[in-house]
Amino acid sequence: MKTYCKYGTHRVIEPLGVLPQAAYKIDSTPICYDNELLIDVDTLNIDSASFHQIKDVCNHDEIKMKMMILDIVNTQGKMQNPVTKSGGMLIGTVHKVGSAFHNQSLNKGDKIATLVSLSLTPLFIEEISSINLTNEQVNIKGKAILFDSGIYAVIPSDMNEKLALAALDVAGAPAQVQKLAKKNDIVFIIGAAGKSGMLCSYEAKKQVGKNGRVIGLVQNEQQKEMMIANQLCDEVFVGDALNSLETYEKMMKLTEGKLADLTINVVNVENTEMTSILSTKDQGIVYFFSMATSFTKAALGAEGIGKDVTMMIGNGYTKNHAEITLNILRESKEIYHLLVQKYV
Amino acid sequence: MKTYCKYGTHRVIEPLGVLPQAAYKIDSTPICYDNELLIDVDTLNIDSASFHQIKDVCNHDEIKMKMMILDIVNTQGKMQNPVTKSGGMLIGTVHKVGSAFHNQSLNKGDKIATLVSLSLTPLFIEEISSINLTNEQVNIKGKAILFDSGIYAVIPSDMNEKLALAALDVAGAPAQVQKLAKKNDIVFIIGAAGKSGMLCSYEAKKQVGKNGRVIGLVQNEQQKEMMIANQLCDEVFVGDALNSLETYEKMMKLTEGKLADLTINVVNVENTEMTSILSTKDQGIVYFFSMATSFTKAALGAEGIGKDVTMMIGNGYTKNHAEITLNILRESKEIYHLLVQKYV
Repeated sequence: MKTYCKYGTHRVIEPLGVLPQAAYKIDSTPICYDNELLIDVDTLNIDSASFHQIKDVCNHDEIKMKMMILDIVNTQGKMQNPVTKSGGMLIGTVHKVGSAFHNQSLNKGDKIATLVSLSLTPLFIEEISSINLTNEQVNIKGKAILFDSGIYAVIPSDMNEKLALAALDVAGAPAQVQKLAKKNDIVFIIGAAGKSGMLCSYEAKKQVGKNGRVIGLVQNEQQKEMMIANQLCDEVFVGDALNSLETYEKMMKLTEGKLADLTINVVNVENTEMTSILSTKDQGIVYFFSMATSFTKAALGAEGIGKDVTMMIGNGYTKNHAEITLNILRESKEIYHLLVQKYV
Repeated sequence: MKTYCKYGTHRVIEPLGVLPQAAYKIDSTPICYDNELLIDVDTLNIDSASFHQIKDVCNHDEIKMKMMILDIVNTQGKMQNPVTKSGGMLIGTVHKVGSAFHNQSLNKGDKIATLVSLSLTPLFIEEISSINLTNEQVNIKGKAILFDSGIYAVIPSDMNEKLALAALDVAGAPAQVQKLAKKNDIVFIIGAAGKSGMLCSYEAKKQVGKNGRVIGLVQNEQQKEMMIANQLCDEVFVGDALNSLETYEKMMKLTEGKLADLTINVVNVENTEMTSILSTKDQGIVYFFSMATSFTKAALGAEGIGKDVTMMIGNGYTKNHAEITLNILRESKEIYHLLVQKYV
């Protein structure tokens, strides 16, 4: 008898012994094993880097793109772009809940979004109906498997699907802020006007309370006005996240030499490690959520200036992250409207 | 009047506006400004990667190597290898303490080792006396500047200089373990038989107490025997740090399904992120000390399997790290002798 692994190694075909994400080929047979969840897939939200690579190679030709996506999925059993290695998320409805799947309260027909990458999700495509070149969504008829360790969110009935997805995509960030920001803290958000940045700013303000302060660094005056008009930060300044010293001096001034207790880096550009480290006080925390972060630049940078800060690698998953993030959209009319304008 | 910056930007020549580590050229004039420390340098401990690059390019010819090192330092004002970008440390004696330097208790003639990289340290070489091709030390006559933010350790009079240096080189790791390991914890050390690994194992055992457990992963039977003979871990097993699943299953067995509260990764090979994450329990901590760690592999890996672990970037500096680490050598005869065999 076959043993089923919570991480899905029972579906790895090649090479054997690795986890599904590292595998070249996995078994996507649309049968629900005991510890799995079988999903009727409606839409693939292809990762942006992957989608652009496919679009470029196919000269924006939808038919060629369909063939390329089908070819990848048929060959590998999953939608993992062989060049960018990235995946994306999917939306669908529950088809069957395996008898040993960890959550037995899910029902057939529940609308869910998977929060683990498509790069490790067994996917079987019957047909690609359409590709939306603007919002990077691919509508399909097909089935996918979620492993027992896989995470997902039930799409709330009180919320637009695209809005929920846009928020769920970065759900880890504000949920981590909820855990890390403490009453009366000074929190510094680098890249405060982006989607993650706004959600983090809102959550930080809630946690630090009236005597705490949330300071945001944004790229231009327009963003600054937007942040102030919506009261998402206590202070906002326009600055260059690449200019470590200028940012440090600005933070020294704004905090009267105290610097930040917690710095959240959500700016998706390289070489902002030192800016984050310098702006944080000794014994403070720097949370790197940007995928552009370099491990060695952070590690050697802090040592180089003898700065005793705790540096954390952003984990896209933390307990209740989907609920925490969707609740922000329910609580804050401002963020709700800002995201509706952008994503719906 | 010139303002002196604690991070040493007053000595940056090119390009202006960056910190000394990122600068191409800094001013190494051997004059002690108010907030600086001026050092008479005896020995450069060139970083291993840098030393090998120079040795290779110069065909192991000592004269050519001397010229290459002089050329780098004369051009850049610091011993930062233009290819590897790395530096090293230095040993010397205090020549002058600036009137605004943060530690006024240092005295002329005190023997110190700098704990910030040579890649940001202004260095002026008068003469290179000799190069030791075996232990990668370069004996010179010259002067160096330590900025106000720079960290250093006074070489203890009760300890061999080379032994102290070998330990100080990795001082951050055991000092972080002292802060993170708690009573009764299960601590897992990946790469337990290396220099950092042994120091971390010892410190972890001290912190977790009798009811805690320290488990070490080592590469071969010889290392296992050494670790057991010296009682550096409670359990040691031989395993492949690249094989995530095998290691995870071994840890599941050894801990009866609990997994580690704290995992310390000190193994200097790539692709051990998933092994570290899988071996750690939910809400546990993974501390990545290995410079081979990939930020994205760690971040996406944890999310991919829905694992709620705190992942930390190893900071080579933390308060009192030198003292904590040198004290291990004073307390543990076993580690003292093991390191003397290897480094003295």
